[in-house]
Amino acid sequence: MSDVTAGEPLSERVIAIVGVGLIGGSIAAALKGRNFAGEVVGVGRNSSRLEAARERGLINRGSTDLEEVARQADLLIFCTPVDLIAAGVRDAAGHCRPGTLITDAGSTKQTICRELATGLPDGVQFIGSHPLAGSEKQGYEYAEADLFVGRLCVVTPDESSDPAALDRLVRFWRALGSEVTQLAPDAHDRIVARTSHLPHVVAAALASLLPESADRFAASGFSDTTRIASGDPALWTAILLANAEEILAGLDEMSGTLQQYRDTIAAGDRDGLHKRLELGKATRDRLINSNTDRKP
Amino acid sequence: MSDVTAGEPLSERVIAIVGVGLIGGSIAAALKGRNFAGEVVGVGRNSSRLEAARERGLINRGSTDLEEVARQADLLIFCTPVDLIAAGVRDAAGHCRPGTLITDAGSTKQTICRELATGLPDGVQFIGSHPLAGSEKQGYEYAEADLFVGRLCVVTPDESSDPAALDRLVRFWRALGSEVTQLAPDAHDRIVARTSHLPHVVAAALASLLPESADRFAASGFSDTTRIASGDPALWTAILLANAEEILAGLDEMSGTLQQYRDTIAAGDRDGLHKRLELGKATRDRLINSNTDRKP
Repeated sequence: MSDVTAGEPLSERVIAIVGVGLIGGSIAAALKGRNFAGEVVGVGRNSSRLEAARERGLINRGSTDLEEVARQADLLIFCTPVDLIAAGVRDAAGHCRPGTLITDAGSTKQTICRELATGLPDGVQFIGSHPLAGSEKQGYEYAEADLFVGRLCVVTPDESSDPAALDRLVRFWRALGSEVTQLAPDAHDRIVARTSHLPHVVAAALASLLPESADRFAASGFSDTTRIASGDPALWTAILLANAEEILAGLDEMSGTLQQYRDTIAAGDRDGLHKRLELGKATRDRLINSNTDRKP
Repeated sequence: MSDVTAGEPLSERVIAIVGVGLIGGSIAAALKGRNFAGEVVGVGRNSSRLEAARERGLINRGSTDLEEVARQADLLIFCTPVDLIAAGVRDAAGHCRPGTLITDAGSTKQTICRELATGLPDGVQFIGSHPLAGSEKQGYEYAEADLFVGRLCVVTPDESSDPAALDRLVRFWRALGSEVTQLAPDAHDRIVARTSHLPHVVAAALASLLPESADRFAASGFSDTTRIASGDPALWTAILLANAEEILAGLDEMSGTLQQYRDTIAAGDRDGLHKRLELGKATRDRLINSNTDRKP
């Protein structure tokens, strides 16, 4: 792991952000906010959205031509939906100069890293990233320069990754204010299935059970518990299918736990119910104590 | 329903709050903050806690003697755990003067209102209340004078309730800034099973599944989804058992929905999964649009 300290100037001259939405836009905003001296190029399909992001000062220029940008960029960051990342990286890599580093910001890593483990041109490195930051909102309109500050970013190199490229990647995320940690792609996917993907399914399921007549009775508890259900269904469909195995295991465990709650409540088992609720509280309170700098 | 406008002075001279925790303390703070001219008496078991609440300026005085306070109070509000409310009200009512109004702030209404529907002294009225406001935190230390502002408070009179007493109750909650609506106790319990009690079980179950090794990877999504799991297990045990029937029905529906998610993900059914996530999002987004004044 790199010992680069936060705030050290980046050596890249051209950084390309493919997909200028909430995450891509926030990366751009973070670079601007930290006085990145090079050029930030936004790549997307919608030139008027790119032009608007440029007018907002997030990017120096926009392009709908990935190949053209790939030829110039020193670092490309794919912030597209997870099911489009591997193909996009492969398309771009064919046009990159040797020494170019490619990463992503996808919420799943195993499928992407496996697809990109072989076949990239010599000298072009892909190492996966997942900044654990975000929001249920969509679009660069919600970009925040400080989105990554104090948040964890997981990078997922494999044994073939070039140490110098890994060092550059770590330096990049630290420059944006992230703490960086390293995991194998499968370990990453197993963990985020529990911390993010299963919670998304649960929140969406719970939200969908609310009859419209009850809307006005839903207070802050319901709103918080279901907030992430407002995330983009297309993005989340891709995430849930890309990490299906781990999420299915989590769903089974969740269903079993709810069944135990059901049995306990149906039996009027006060002590058993209290113990279950205590366990939930103890786990949740652990986060309050350990993650105070990450707005739990 | 009353047409009393918010902010009209209350006619009570002595208001007793039984249980000076987050809700009771916030009622006290709201009365103080709105220049209530009478006396606010806190009733509890722990005299040093009551003294501390008095020193903080929340209450004018504290007492551990419910009978003594019941003899003087014009309005008593029980903010105790739901399984203690009915017995407490009955104890107090035997010492109240005719004309005294008693209410509560409990999260379930059917059991409490049924137990108190008969046998109270003539001239002493109990009408249930449930202010839809609160937090996972415990204790008057977290009291907020504006906790009820813009929030809904459900009152649950029955056919025997005195209209003048109902009017006083509505006036009271409106004076604290609440919107007030009226429901039958069973309708209330059915609705809050979906908006509050089922979400609590789900949040606690989800929280309990997080392995400690994954704590540092839990970001704001997990934290929000499980926040209410930090609520007091004793309070919630009582609530879940008092509304068991409706919660069991909700749990069955939740389990069925999770099973449908499971089937859809296991089948790799992209369209089916997208439709389910869209339904969750549509429901959650409905709240953003309808409840903007209630911090969704």
